[in-house]
Amino acid sequence: MNPILVEATRGGTVESAHRGALVVVDARGTPVRAIGDVTRPVFARSAVKVLQALPLVTSGAADAFQLSDEELALACASHNGEARHVATASGVLAKAGLDASALECGAHWPQHEVAQRELAASGVALSALHNNCSGKHAGFLCVGCMMARAQGRDVRAFVRGYVKADHPVMREISASLQDATGCDLSRAPVGTDGCSIPTFGIALQQLALAFAKVATGVGLSAERAAAAARLRRAVANAPFFVAGSGRFDTRVMQRLGERVFCKVGAEGVFCAALPEAGIGVAIKMDDGNNARAAEVVMAAAIEALVRLDDTERTFVRGFSDVALHNWNGIRVGELRAAAVLRETLRPTDS
Amino acid sequence: MNPILVEATRGGTVESAHRGALVVVDARGTPVRAIGDVTRPVFARSAVKVLQALPLVTSGAADAFQLSDEELALACASHNGEARHVATASGVLAKAGLDASALECGAHWPQHEVAQRELAASGVALSALHNNCSGKHAGFLCVGCMMARAQGRDVRAFVRGYVKADHPVMREISASLQDATGCDLSRAPVGTDGCSIPTFGIALQQLALAFAKVATGVGLSAERAAAAARLRRAVANAPFFVAGSGRFDTRVMQRLGERVFCKVGAEGVFCAALPEAGIGVAIKMDDGNNARAAEVVMAAAIEALVRLDDTERTFVRGFSDVALHNWNGIRVGELRAAAVLRETLRPTDS
Repeated sequence: MNPILVEATRGGTVESAHRGALVVVDARGTPVRAIGDVTRPVFARSAVKVLQALPLVTSGAADAFQLSDEELALACASHNGEARHVATASGVLAKAGLDASALECGAHWPQHEVAQRELAASGVALSALHNNCSGKHAGFLCVGCMMARAQGRDVRAFVRGYVKADHPVMREISASLQDATGCDLSRAPVGTDGCSIPTFGIALQQLALAFAKVATGVGLSAERAAAAARLRRAVANAPFFVAGSGRFDTRVMQRLGERVFCKVGAEGVFCAALPEAGIGVAIKMDDGNNARAAEVVMAAAIEALVRLDDTERTFVRGFSDVALHNWNGIRVGELRAAAVLRETLRPTDS
Repeated sequence: MNPILVEATRGGTVESAHRGALVVVDARGTPVRAIGDVTRPVFARSAVKVLQALPLVTSGAADAFQLSDEELALACASHNGEARHVATASGVLAKAGLDASALECGAHWPQHEVAQRELAASGVALSALHNNCSGKHAGFLCVGCMMARAQGRDVRAFVRGYVKADHPVMREISASLQDATGCDLSRAPVGTDGCSIPTFGIALQQLALAFAKVATGVGLSAERAAAAARLRRAVANAPFFVAGSGRFDTRVMQRLGERVFCKVGAEGVFCAALPEAGIGVAIKMDDGNNARAAEVVMAAAIEALVRLDDTERTFVRGFSDVALHNWNGIRVGELRAAAVLRETLRPTDS
């Protein structure tokens, strides 16, 4: 039974609450903070996109296609489907000699409400480019393009079906995930993600370890360590492209730069690499709530684990202790990290 | 600690889960089914709009303004903000000699994505009429209009501030709520709702009792019992107006008619009156999840407690045991009522 990590109050009374688990580990895999069940496999979903993007760099695609920071950040993104995201995804595909028709992620309306309304008002047709995963898929296709070229194969024919677990592209992506997490994916629970690629059940402590590796490079090959550092820098330089307007990941990294690499996933999963402390963080909310639960927990973790000045601390506190207002702007309640979570995250004397 | 009532699976593994409580009571207030904590006060939110709409009938406003079933249903609604909802709310206000400027609910974009996109594409300005509560507020204003006329007061001046707890209109609304639930609201936890009216913390078993009264008329004055029956019939005749396209309440009542009156509220609250069995149902999900949790629980309750033929049972099962598909239409998992909930709801031998 996981503890309550986040409470939503109204008029001073707790109206709803969110249970979950969090673990923080160092690059040796030693837990330095933990609350709740951190050994149960959880589907990592989009939280691990940076691990799945390592082959984009190690394959040589990032250099061959001269991918910009914006394009690399988009490969790690769950983006809002805003016009700049869509244009950038399209540009990456063009560099690999492909277009939106190669994407196998499916189409959905932009998850960002403003972007959705702008698209509706524009009359532009909805496409797979608007899928929040289109940048990740464009990255997969770049990896596939490199493989096809190396084998002298037709690129379009080679990449077809790249979302399937046994396609050479997806094998490479999953190998990267397995190496970083140390989880034997052949024995892990497996499901199909929203964008149709396989998603694996991985223990929170293994996810946190992978992000400690991303933070430090320790435990990765020199090639993968360099790739991780390049992706972290790219996202820090272009945080709009990893999420978008108003989003937690974008706002936090715009403010804190390379000190935080954080990435939300579906169903209340959230991971972060904190390079200065050399640690990784992994969170899963039992009920799958992101915007109101996993984000509050991550903000509390960043507040406790990252060196911040007073104005930065106030900024981050704005995500872990949030005033809720109604449609008339009247303050109706609060969303806040529970005391037991703050206590768990409190700096130790050692 | 409330039990898990709903599970979301992916690839056969439980990915997320929702805890909560449910109680079913008869018109004497005797619990006939219960699971979880049903005595803790929960903010009833929009689930009790039908109780707040009783004065619209008992005040004589429904007759004086010759309100249609559509208009009465809208007074009980959390509507999608679709064009017909907006036009109907506007029409009710006009009957009371008022317009959208009298609404004090605030404006928000339609919660229904399609309606939101249509509004964005139309160029029509967003107004308080699009607020999901605009029909309820239009009903409050009709009550205020009757009061002002009876006192020979200017209607616009009289109704100003009607959302405040101590305004004569809101006193009347809250008195109706108190009478039906049997909860002393002067001692209940109080908060401000999304639409700026007071919302009260009421035990689930008291909410269920109120809906048993709505179902049967037992325990209400003859006047209020008749008003409840009229509102139930209006919603059964015009279920589009209580919610809208694609919504649970609308779809279920379109199919099952007067056998079910159900109404969702914010933060995972859901109530129903089941007239044939003479019972009321009240649900609260701990994490505040409606679409994926409270609705599944309500569907399981309807399935167990309402006399259904086989095709109706299959229809309702489609809400309590739901196949989940991704953006490519691939089946990725299930959303389902937990076994312990089914067991609780199972018909007893007595």
